[in-house]
Amino acid sequence: MASRIKADYPWTVSPLIVNAPMAGFAGGKLAGSVSRAGGLGLIGSDMDMNRLASELEIASKIIHDSPNLVKASQDTLPVGVGILAFITDIEKALPVVQKYRPRAVWLFAARQLSDYKTWAERVREVTGGKTKIWIQIGSVVKALEVLKLCKPDVLIAQGIDAGGHGFERGAGVISLVPEMRDAMDANGFQDVCLVASGGIADGRGVAAAWALGADGIVMGTRFLAAEETLIHPTYRDAILQGKDGGQFTVRHKVFDNLKGPTIWPDGYDGRAIVSKTYRDMEEGVSIEEIRRRVKESEAATGKDYGVEGRTAVWAGAGVGLVNEVQKAGDILEEVRAKSMDVLRGAKSLL
Amino acid sequence: MASRIKADYPWTVSPLIVNAPMAGFAGGKLAGSVSRAGGLGLIGSDMDMNRLASELEIASKIIHDSPNLVKASQDTLPVGVGILAFITDIEKALPVVQKYRPRAVWLFAARQLSDYKTWAERVREVTGGKTKIWIQIGSVVKALEVLKLCKPDVLIAQGIDAGGHGFERGAGVISLVPEMRDAMDANGFQDVCLVASGGIADGRGVAAAWALGADGIVMGTRFLAAEETLIHPTYRDAILQGKDGGQFTVRHKVFDNLKGPTIWPDGYDGRAIVSKTYRDMEEGVSIEEIRRRVKESEAATGKDYGVEGRTAVWAGAGVGLVNEVQKAGDILEEVRAKSMDVLRGAKSLL
Repeated sequence: MASRIKADYPWTVSPLIVNAPMAGFAGGKLAGSVSRAGGLGLIGSDMDMNRLASELEIASKIIHDSPNLVKASQDTLPVGVGILAFITDIEKALPVVQKYRPRAVWLFAARQLSDYKTWAERVREVTGGKTKIWIQIGSVVKALEVLKLCKPDVLIAQGIDAGGHGFERGAGVISLVPEMRDAMDANGFQDVCLVASGGIADGRGVAAAWALGADGIVMGTRFLAAEETLIHPTYRDAILQGKDGGQFTVRHKVFDNLKGPTIWPDGYDGRAIVSKTYRDMEEGVSIEEIRRRVKESEAATGKDYGVEGRTAVWAGAGVGLVNEVQKAGDILEEVRAKSMDVLRGAKSLL
Repeated sequence: MASRIKADYPWTVSPLIVNAPMAGFAGGKLAGSVSRAGGLGLIGSDMDMNRLASELEIASKIIHDSPNLVKASQDTLPVGVGILAFITDIEKALPVVQKYRPRAVWLFAARQLSDYKTWAERVREVTGGKTKIWIQIGSVVKALEVLKLCKPDVLIAQGIDAGGHGFERGAGVISLVPEMRDAMDANGFQDVCLVASGGIADGRGVAAAWALGADGIVMGTRFLAAEETLIHPTYRDAILQGKDGGQFTVRHKVFDNLKGPTIWPDGYDGRAIVSKTYRDMEEGVSIEEIRRRVKESEAATGKDYGVEGRTAVWAGAGVGLVNEVQKAGDILEEVRAKSMDVLRGAKSLL
């Protein structure tokens, strides 16, 4: 499968590292920088196609500063674009995809699985199959359904340690990745790549995901501390201060309900830091009162990030492993080197 | 750290594999068989000291059939004993520990962390330090507190994919193990072993846990399918049928409330299969009515295990990887061989 990764993303260095397409955070600068450093950079989902196009322009400029990358990109833009299928107008998005030909479109949160089929077919149509279809999934049964519907090029197995939005019920990558790989292999999908996401924040996690059978790995929270990420300084401070990730963060639907009823489909929630808002909810404060408090504190402070704040701060359970601001390229280099060190150490066991 | 494992459990083969001390399931036959096959076998917690002693007798007989194991056991019984600290009377347990000198006492679910100190001191006292202290923990902050209180020989980092009882809030081993190891190293506890637990069910998981920095791994659900485990046939059938582990199982407090109010301290819940009882709860059925239904169906059927049953069936998110009944020794051999295969394959990356 390493050969398929190398064929489809020929500029990448093994093991494949991808930044999560974090909406509002992962812009063209991060995506371009990640791809330039031998990963696959992703631009986060955006409903506003002008903004999405302008982030693609930014990525394109970074890519074009690197002739080798352009050469290796096989007539595509060697970054990917995240699409939140339930709120993205396909008719508006397709012309942007057609124009920029990102190497990957990463689909997530369709209202129904059949929507992935529509997206996959139409994206393939407008880019002559040059744009690879990535689909994010959290269940083995649904993975098989999606594979049968539209055979994506890559499945992203998202475990419950992931920050931001994900599946309300699920497993960590330790169980999810091997079971999904087995099910794919047993059902004739040996040639579909599997990428692990959720809770991975350093080279040890990358080596572990590889051992579990993943062809690549996604990091989100780690890239919140990348210099190139679009992020408010106090949001980033909250990430850097986070320790004991499974206690510091929690999955809950309340974080999507702070401005009014959630717009997300059923079955999704999100992992964010345990904030004043979360503690209010635990203490039984009504959602109306929570919303009032969020509004009040945001009126006073703009955004109110942090453990003592009320605005949602999305972060994964790996947040305790994220301790410094670094260039995206340095993150990739450090994580790759560490993962290789770990695997080299296996010799002592063999 | 491999050297400390080898020194303390000299009969074991690397990587160290341990069966979870599943109360009511892991008896002397399983524990003895696991140790005889080069792992560390554990007997599950039991409040009844006569029953615990009789399981220790069973383990002892298996051990004494193996002269090499006896020789390597350094004047202890080379198995461990699980202790649920919140319900076990230390005065009754200590004479049993003193008599059998198990190589390890695995402590879990103390009402307060200081109880671990009492247990650690008194167990060490009655066995002259021959019995190693293992403590199961799910948070980095609490791990450090426990280390400072009584410096156990081993910490078990239990991730949220684990079946049965565990911590209501936490992370998967993918995040928990590396962060805990870093915190231990940074605080002067480099010489304490760290064992990973939760969601690991095959050689890929073992290799992954090793990459994350674990000195050994625990499997629970996989051993529910061991021939030597004490388990009802329909319970085992439910385990073997489980697929898509993150959907088939769920963590919830309801499973501890089926006979009456839970006896567990705050902060704990358990992962079990999504049963009729769980679906009743999701549909808003009151706990009184849930209890009535459980009682009724158990009166009719003895125990009512399975997806269509009402009795709690504890299982981890790795349940989808557990597909056949095997001898414990065969499980160890297969899992170890696979983990070595995986790590050997790393050469292709390096």
